[in-house]
Amino acid sequence: MTSGLHSPSAAPSAHAARGVPRRPPLSPALLDALQTRFGTRVTTADAVREHHGSDESPYDPVPPEAVVFAHSTKEVSDIVTLCAHHGTPLIPYGAGSSIEGQLLAIEGGISIDLSEMNAIVSVHAEDLTATVQAGVTRKGLNEHLRDTGLFFPIDPGADASLGGMASTRASGTNAVRYGSMRENVLDLTVVLADGRVIKTGTRARKSSAGYDLTRLFVGSEGTLGIITEVTVRLYPQPEHLSVAICTFPTMNEAVRTVIETIQIGVPISRVEFIDPLAIRALNDYSKLSMTEAPTLFFEFQGSQSAIDEQIAAVRELADGHGASDFQWATRPEERNKLWTARHNALFAFLQLRPGCKAITTDVCVPISRLADCVNETAADLAESGLLCPIVGHVGDGNFHVLILVDPNTEGEFEKGEALNQRLVRRAIAMDGTCTGEHGIGLHKMGFLVEEHGEDVIGVMRAIKQALDPKNLMNPGKIFAFEGPTVPALSV
Amino acid sequence: MTSGLHSPSAAPSAHAARGVPRRPPLSPALLDALQTRFGTRVTTADAVREHHGSDESPYDPVPPEAVVFAHSTKEVSDIVTLCAHHGTPLIPYGAGSSIEGQLLAIEGGISIDLSEMNAIVSVHAEDLTATVQAGVTRKGLNEHLRDTGLFFPIDPGADASLGGMASTRASGTNAVRYGSMRENVLDLTVVLADGRVIKTGTRARKSSAGYDLTRLFVGSEGTLGIITEVTVRLYPQPEHLSVAICTFPTMNEAVRTVIETIQIGVPISRVEFIDPLAIRALNDYSKLSMTEAPTLFFEFQGSQSAIDEQIAAVRELADGHGASDFQWATRPEERNKLWTARHNALFAFLQLRPGCKAITTDVCVPISRLADCVNETAADLAESGLLCPIVGHVGDGNFHVLILVDPNTEGEFEKGEALNQRLVRRAIAMDGTCTGEHGIGLHKMGFLVEEHGEDVIGVMRAIKQALDPKNLMNPGKIFAFEGPTVPALSV
Repeated sequence: MTSGLHSPSAAPSAHAARGVPRRPPLSPALLDALQTRFGTRVTTADAVREHHGSDESPYDPVPPEAVVFAHSTKEVSDIVTLCAHHGTPLIPYGAGSSIEGQLLAIEGGISIDLSEMNAIVSVHAEDLTATVQAGVTRKGLNEHLRDTGLFFPIDPGADASLGGMASTRASGTNAVRYGSMRENVLDLTVVLADGRVIKTGTRARKSSAGYDLTRLFVGSEGTLGIITEVTVRLYPQPEHLSVAICTFPTMNEAVRTVIETIQIGVPISRVEFIDPLAIRALNDYSKLSMTEAPTLFFEFQGSQSAIDEQIAAVRELADGHGASDFQWATRPEERNKLWTARHNALFAFLQLRPGCKAITTDVCVPISRLADCVNETAADLAESGLLCPIVGHVGDGNFHVLILVDPNTEGEFEKGEALNQRLVRRAIAMDGTCTGEHGIGLHKMGFLVEEHGEDVIGVMRAIKQALDPKNLMNPGKIFAFEGPTVPALSV
Repeated sequence: MTSGLHSPSAAPSAHAARGVPRRPPLSPALLDALQTRFGTRVTTADAVREHHGSDESPYDPVPPEAVVFAHSTKEVSDIVTLCAHHGTPLIPYGAGSSIEGQLLAIEGGISIDLSEMNAIVSVHAEDLTATVQAGVTRKGLNEHLRDTGLFFPIDPGADASLGGMASTRASGTNAVRYGSMRENVLDLTVVLADGRVIKTGTRARKSSAGYDLTRLFVGSEGTLGIITEVTVRLYPQPEHLSVAICTFPTMNEAVRTVIETIQIGVPISRVEFIDPLAIRALNDYSKLSMTEAPTLFFEFQGSQSAIDEQIAAVRELADGHGASDFQWATRPEERNKLWTARHNALFAFLQLRPGCKAITTDVCVPISRLADCVNETAADLAESGLLCPIVGHVGDGNFHVLILVDPNTEGEFEKGEALNQRLVRRAIAMDGTCTGEHGIGLHKMGFLVEEHGEDVIGVMRAIKQALDPKNLMNPGKIFAFEGPTVPALSV
């Protein structure tokens, strides 16, 4: 169904089929204007462009024509205004950690690097909110918060930027308790496609004041505007934390334990599934010695007695599913070692087969279907003969298969993509989604259509048309958009 | 600044200033077509039209030209298609409990009554989700769930319909723990302005699949399409519940107690502030005998030991602020009596001054500013000489003043509106919002502009233009929209 992923033209069918519109090359006048305004913060150096045309996806880089390092919302607005004048596309760049091809400059244009916009604008400890520039990373924010007694919980594996996390509607291991970026962004500063700057919300915890523009921009992957500041919710650091690892005879028993834990409402803060192959990879990469079996990582938090109650409830469920080998990590160093190992999973998995690339799947299903989805997928993976570790934020019904493929072995990409495709279709048939937290980028454009249908894509396209009629904001991502010729809704 | 609220042309300035576009009267051909298709479920009877042109706002009714009772998404789609063909506006009607003028047919057209679309489509107990037709009310859903061990927490005062609650992004007393409709809707079935039907999401708990259309329609007050089915999150019924009432020497001490409770992260499930005048009204209306003092209603939930810990933490904070007279309601009848009294507040307040109407305010501010906002407002209210009970979902920074005005006393509406206007501006200056949970409707259109600025309204208008270019979906609400002549963004 799909060819390899070496170049974007070989990306999944929806993108490949439509072709990439021809745009004129970068105008020397625009480059001049940018250099006059930004000096050495504009570059066309090959290495920098190549870096900015890559992400953690298996795609080969597609470099932008130039890179500009912005330092303020005003500067972003000026760059957008100049680019709008010249009809030049813009791709916002944060930490470069997206994994579905979001950063590839498939229609040329300028990469606008926000990583130096890394100021903490304000922390309102009393209100449990922080406002940061888009380039601040989740670790950077938490480092800043360390002595306040507060923290920001959303933790995709990478040390992603808050702007990027908002753009892909990221989540991570804490989402089972704290939600995703969808629930935790209160306000955004956004530069629109014509250079105007808007604030989408306020610092109030809730509001019914008109259309929810905050959540429209969250998850829009840079296609509707450029997020330059993010106001997020913070939470009190938990009084106590306790982490447990336990192993199960089968993947099914592990997943059933999670389903029952969620159903009875135990307020666990994290629950991660890790399959035996993934355990082996984490052991090797992070110098651990966990048993190579279907494993759950649990985290409990609250007062000591609350934790004790949660643990008792979970142990009873886990015991009913044949759990063994409960191990506890209560000291901060032990806990951090485990979670760091978990967060480094992608890099650990890539070491299972050096030189390979990873096709990362990201389905999320209603939790009642999770065991079916994981089991059917495991059987399919086993048949493929490829190395495919599985990890999952199973409390949300979300899990990732890392399909390791060798770009130099004929047919492996195709085999990996076919596995991914069957997995996505399985999830959609279970009333799930093709992406729990990574976004669509280039890689899932075809799947988005399968999941939602053409009428929904038509609504998204109408919104894109309304806010970015020249299709300059990260063009060619999420869905095909043919510019002004796209008809509006047929009213 | 504003004249009275007797008629919509006297509504706040944004609306009054632009005037209401002239539309042709209801086409006899359309009425014929509707009657052929729907028989006696179409009516032009005065009493029915008057009822459907009213809500709980202080506005006099503005009846639609006809009312149609729909029974299915397909029927809604057929009605929308017919109306689109004739250029006739449509206003969705659920339980009639909105309070900002959302239901008034200020541009004529058809009221489409969804109250008979009251089927529970499915309950997936394992997944903690329910899908219901838009006319199901919150009490209807919870009645249906009673024996499942699950419940749906969002509880505006009225027994609103789920479709209406989604449309206004409703919340209520449980939002401090469970969030609002924003956080609790997973999927919507929506009939678009051209009659097409879309599903905006899936039953997966999280997703990064394209633009967040679910949350775009949540809070859009019927202006972008008609919600016909809603999939919501459910929660396990709490193991134990305990409700406490306590009184404080001053409003300020009560509010400070709440602020500190939130800041240290006590997972209270409800905390409501009620001022002495409001207590008097609740006592009279619900035959209670609470002390007429600044009062907090707390609800705690979880295991008994978790509740005990929460109570101990809150008592310590409350004692520090001079709380007295702690009273406990642990039996279900006692608890229900208190919460029923709280939910009947609007009706109780109206009895304070029979024959009056209520201007209901709804600001929400960052919690650090809550005491300032409440105190400054109380001083302003006291000066006005009007009866103005105050209640608040103070854990969210949200509170309501019910400004009781006599429509027959010259100048009272103006005085009440001036109080509301000063309150809204106070909240906006504190980085808060003009509406925490009631929506904009007609009443807050001017305030929406003040809160967000013209550029944000421009983005909302561009989205409206993209999805409803003929301006037929609940026209004239949220913001002024001049139809196809509105320019798109100036790119």
